[in-house]
Amino acid sequence: MFINVKFAPSMVGSDHDLKQSSVVVIDTLRATSTIIAALMAGAREVIAAATIEEAVAISHRLGTERTLLGGERGGLRIKGFHLGNSPGEYTPEVVHGKTIVLTTSNGSGALLKARQAAQTLCGALLNASAVARHLAAGGTREVLLLCSGSGGNVSLEDSIAAGAILAELLAVQDSESVTISDGARIALWLFNECRNDLHAALRASEHGKVLTELGFAHDLDYCAQLDIPNAPVPAFAGSSIKVQQSGPTGPTAARFV
Amino acid sequence: MFINVKFAPSMVGSDHDLKQSSVVVIDTLRATSTIIAALMAGAREVIAAATIEEAVAISHRLGTERTLLGGERGGLRIKGFHLGNSPGEYTPEVVHGKTIVLTTSNGSGALLKARQAAQTLCGALLNASAVARHLAAGGTREVLLLCSGSGGNVSLEDSIAAGAILAELLAVQDSESVTISDGARIALWLFNECRNDLHAALRASEHGKVLTELGFAHDLDYCAQLDIPNAPVPAFAGSSIKVQQSGPTGPTAARFV
Repeated sequence: MFINVKFAPSMVGSDHDLKQSSVVVIDTLRATSTIIAALMAGAREVIAAATIEEAVAISHRLGTERTLLGGERGGLRIKGFHLGNSPGEYTPEVVHGKTIVLTTSNGSGALLKARQAAQTLCGALLNASAVARHLAAGGTREVLLLCSGSGGNVSLEDSIAAGAILAELLAVQDSESVTISDGARIALWLFNECRNDLHAALRASEHGKVLTELGFAHDLDYCAQLDIPNAPVPAFAGSSIKVQQSGPTGPTAARFV
Repeated sequence: MFINVKFAPSMVGSDHDLKQSSVVVIDTLRATSTIIAALMAGAREVIAAATIEEAVAISHRLGTERTLLGGERGGLRIKGFHLGNSPGEYTPEVVHGKTIVLTTSNGSGALLKARQAAQTLCGALLNASAVARHLAAGGTREVLLLCSGSGGNVSLEDSIAAGAILAELLAVQDSESVTISDGARIALWLFNECRNDLHAALRASEHGKVLTELGFAHDLDYCAQLDIPNAPVPAFAGSSIKVQQSGPTGPTAARFV
């Protein structure tokens, strides 16, 4: 198995990079954490949309009674949308059985870019080990951990989450059979540096500071949790994201702190 | 001063990113280390060319008697070129007074992309502190440390060199006046992790392994040196790269180990 980490979607040069790979899209603060929370709370599926207009159009096409519009611009809920990008909003009472159409500043674009891959999963600290075990069990030969970053820049929290997935992948694989890139080495080292206080690392990150200022400190507390019980592995199934690996839904959503 | 690190040229989104910034292009193995060595050995200037054909055309335009063609593809000297991309080839006997037309796999492209910046410097471990002091003395408000990476991926050695420049920048600035991005934070942590044995870090890097297999282990020894005496700060002056900060030329080239 060859494991690579790219720190921003712009580093994916061509579809060729993707078609050979299992890609894990990571947007720890907050899109992939929100997708995990939504699916754990019983949402039927999540559809990523690049723009606000596209999200609204998808919702109308599928039927507004079965869809909820979610997402953010500048960290804040989009005007007219049902939900923002806080995992804690995605409770069973609100999302159970619904299709979530989600558009966010960074994560949605990364997800849509990665959809060309042989397999596209959603990763975060919340489900790091579950993602790693899924990849290991699938016998994947090439893994790309694709960080969404922020506005084209590296983000600390995505790099740490990439390292968390990698640490578990190395733990469950025969180390002789694994080769890692320089990017993967950096992510792994970073995770090991921060693993004893992931909350502090997220609070120190650029986007963590912005979210705290906007009043979303509770989202950092939630998203900094490593390996919540029964964490799902969300994956693209056709055009939407569904739970790849089953786990109980509902109760765990109450773990939101 | 705001300091950002981008780990690959593809992460530079637009000219706007550059026009406000002092950009330091880093290709530790080996283009910017070679440029430093060439200028220390008394080369008149270095001209970066994107392709082999462009390099040959520039050499013909300027006059083949005053130019030397240098560079690599796949790590090896290009057929018909005078010089490869090993700093040790660029001795005073060979390059003094000459214009070097250089085309390499990653560094040349990064240099040409960064040429739009307010100021474009060449950095490596060899001149990390000299670059930092030059930036601090110039009162630059925005600094972008732009890693060339390798084939669109992160490279360990460039990330470490970015951290080395950053460590010195933070040492000579009033820390209250400096803000660093998540990418810069990662580079700084990485440098502090590796600074006690930079040779080992370069040998462990993906490109370091390739160069060692190709017989260029001595280049790693040279390029792993932090802050060689009288290291120049190469900078774009018009279309070519010249020494920005004077230092003795000639003798120091003998430091090649």
